[in-house]
Amino acid sequence: MADSYKNILKKISDKTIKIGVLGLGYVGLPLAVTFALKNTKVLGFEKSSEKVKLVNTGKNYIGDIEDIDLETVSKNGYLEATEDFSRISECDAVLICVPTPLDHFKKPDMTYIESACTEIGQNMKPCTFICLESTTYPTTTEDLMLPIIEKESGMKVEDDFWLAFSPERVDPGNEEYKTGNTPKVLGAMTEKGKKIGMELYSIAIKYMYPVSSPRVAEMVKILENTYRLVNISLINELALLSGKMKINIWEVIEAAKTKPYGFQAFYPGPGVGGHCIPLDPFYLEYIAKKYNFDIAMINTAGQVDNLMPHRMTVKIGTALNKHKKPINGSKILFLGVAYKPDISDERESPALKIMDEVAHKGGDVLYHDPHIPAVKTEGGRTFNSVYLSDNILKEVDCIVVTTKHKIFDFGKIEEKAALIVDLQNAYPARTEKIYKL
Amino acid sequence: MADSYKNILKKISDKTIKIGVLGLGYVGLPLAVTFALKNTKVLGFEKSSEKVKLVNTGKNYIGDIEDIDLETVSKNGYLEATEDFSRISECDAVLICVPTPLDHFKKPDMTYIESACTEIGQNMKPCTFICLESTTYPTTTEDLMLPIIEKESGMKVEDDFWLAFSPERVDPGNEEYKTGNTPKVLGAMTEKGKKIGMELYSIAIKYMYPVSSPRVAEMVKILENTYRLVNISLINELALLSGKMKINIWEVIEAAKTKPYGFQAFYPGPGVGGHCIPLDPFYLEYIAKKYNFDIAMINTAGQVDNLMPHRMTVKIGTALNKHKKPINGSKILFLGVAYKPDISDERESPALKIMDEVAHKGGDVLYHDPHIPAVKTEGGRTFNSVYLSDNILKEVDCIVVTTKHKIFDFGKIEEKAALIVDLQNAYPARTEKIYKL
Repeated sequence: MADSYKNILKKISDKTIKIGVLGLGYVGLPLAVTFALKNTKVLGFEKSSEKVKLVNTGKNYIGDIEDIDLETVSKNGYLEATEDFSRISECDAVLICVPTPLDHFKKPDMTYIESACTEIGQNMKPCTFICLESTTYPTTTEDLMLPIIEKESGMKVEDDFWLAFSPERVDPGNEEYKTGNTPKVLGAMTEKGKKIGMELYSIAIKYMYPVSSPRVAEMVKILENTYRLVNISLINELALLSGKMKINIWEVIEAAKTKPYGFQAFYPGPGVGGHCIPLDPFYLEYIAKKYNFDIAMINTAGQVDNLMPHRMTVKIGTALNKHKKPINGSKILFLGVAYKPDISDERESPALKIMDEVAHKGGDVLYHDPHIPAVKTEGGRTFNSVYLSDNILKEVDCIVVTTKHKIFDFGKIEEKAALIVDLQNAYPARTEKIYKL
Repeated sequence: MADSYKNILKKISDKTIKIGVLGLGYVGLPLAVTFALKNTKVLGFEKSSEKVKLVNTGKNYIGDIEDIDLETVSKNGYLEATEDFSRISECDAVLICVPTPLDHFKKPDMTYIESACTEIGQNMKPCTFICLESTTYPTTTEDLMLPIIEKESGMKVEDDFWLAFSPERVDPGNEEYKTGNTPKVLGAMTEKGKKIGMELYSIAIKYMYPVSSPRVAEMVKILENTYRLVNISLINELALLSGKMKINIWEVIEAAKTKPYGFQAFYPGPGVGGHCIPLDPFYLEYIAKKYNFDIAMINTAGQVDNLMPHRMTVKIGTALNKHKKPINGSKILFLGVAYKPDISDERESPALKIMDEVAHKGGDVLYHDPHIPAVKTEGGRTFNSVYLSDNILKEVDCIVVTTKHKIFDFGKIEEKAALIVDLQNAYPARTEKIYKL
């Protein structure tokens, strides 16, 4: 193995290494492109034949990638996509970027990771470096992945392959920090694995930060996103109280930001969305049970967050009631269903949950989102984005601002609308027409 | 009143204004000195004759003030202290810096503010500017202070005096941010009050930030410290879980800090202490009840924090047990009782609570803190700081690191000690001898 260790380091240093990326979604594709742009051969594995075709014809489907970059690396051959997982045997390193969702009972769904490990174990050649990027609970790499890979391959870690964890830090829509310039943490099972991982990622990532074990790296990502969930839940509660106390919480936050130390601003809204913040903390809550530990702060933050869409529905009802209208039978237009501004991702978006509840109460629900043409809610309802005509704006009983896309002309919307429920601080103050969170 | 408005602004601009500061504690005295250093006459009101004497003889008793500064302003006459509250009538402006503690049931004790307002109302001359700095629940200035001052004085706000709220942001021990260079938020009841407040404070404070009302300013301070309580509670829970999972939480935090956006580091410890973080959030919880609102995040953070000293006692017991010793009858030395490093303030310090519980369980409790010669616990126990001889270090069954003062020689302590329970990350890793939080 000493030779193979030197060998893989040499392949990294002369860039003859071939990197497999499992999963070409919002994490895997940017990662694959970032490596390929550094003239490293990347083979992307993806079960969706549609995505494979798009990548191989140089067509981009991820907002955080420049179209020209994908086109370039697809044309020059540094990036190739395939549905054929047996080709894992061609790769010297395999980076796993598969989804780690929660099931309907908020329990981690590890099937994607398990299946990736099985595919890798069955197909990899000896002396492969394997690294998981998907957010998951601490101990996953050591206690879940390792046994599967060893069993399926008949090989032993350190003797025959190396295993590490390096959490993705993709922030969709972030203009400043992309895959290449966001510092990346890595923890491996062995010292050699750590060295290989650090050298390998340094091809594509500007700043790598090693930690002592995979479980530390796993906890890092969970801490980052748990911090966000807890603080968003806190500010949402304070926003609800401030509404009752006639305090503009956004003014409070701007003023608190003048404190030059010990404060970071979070902003209220209709709830948390996306693929990270509503999910990651519950991975930790799940594994904590195994250690007979309950994380009260996560539990409470989850409760607060869970209640937000319902509380927002109540606000819509209150606002309509002031105008002597019920939800039942009223035309209610939602502006924005993306979980944050200026992106085209509606996963876990609180807007959809509010739309479900309002529709369930008999509201005539419409939505407009220039980035998302159609949605399906958890409640099984489907909606198509309507064209935002002056007539629509005038005709509806209530407009609910659920996402503050830059493209929205809030001045014009206010002019035409009868009633606006502003859940995103699109307007500075409450008026007859505007009901703020 | 138009004349008196112009008049007070003129007095501010030519620095002939006389400022009263009520309460010469860790907030009031630095504020008084900061104004006096700008050659503005300050009259400090203080019930403790001892403090009055110290100030008037130029002797400093607050860590955040340079001795020479107090000596200077006392000698040159810009600062004078008095026990005679009738002299409020000499002042053009009165800044209130009295304590706002919680009672034993964690309810706000407003008696200091009430009594300050009564003194002011009975003694002030017309056209006085009044501003509260003490942390309190939103609506205090408008709903509690205003009625008392108007009743006691027979005067009307705006017609006869001005009223504002401007929260102190004193951070004891902060080397960079002192009273003068920490931005300050101010909200007044009226526009003229705001203008006077902004001009007045700008004599001493570099950067003033106005908000639309006292209640917004009141909420700002609560938000800042609630943010801290919630995040400290979160990281304390994660530290406890990490201990069980063999994850070094401090390593996790350092790695998470490499994320260049959306994260702020908090560090675990034996619990929160001091006069702000353990108190301020419960002011908000108190007033929230009036609005039929429960703040689940504060409630849970309070529970987590309340339990920390007990959990730390359990840790001490576990560590001793590994060495086949019980708490009962063991000699246990606490290192540091200040609530944070390098200060001499033990208010609400978790160390004292742990000492109480350990003593209650029969432990022979000693402590050493170079900054605090003696303490009295909530449980009514008194202790004197022992001299840290080599013999003491060797003789005790267990040393508990409760405050990480810079002055401690942790290398030497480790060398001599039989067992160390490190609650402050004084040592990098667990060993036979070192038991970490």
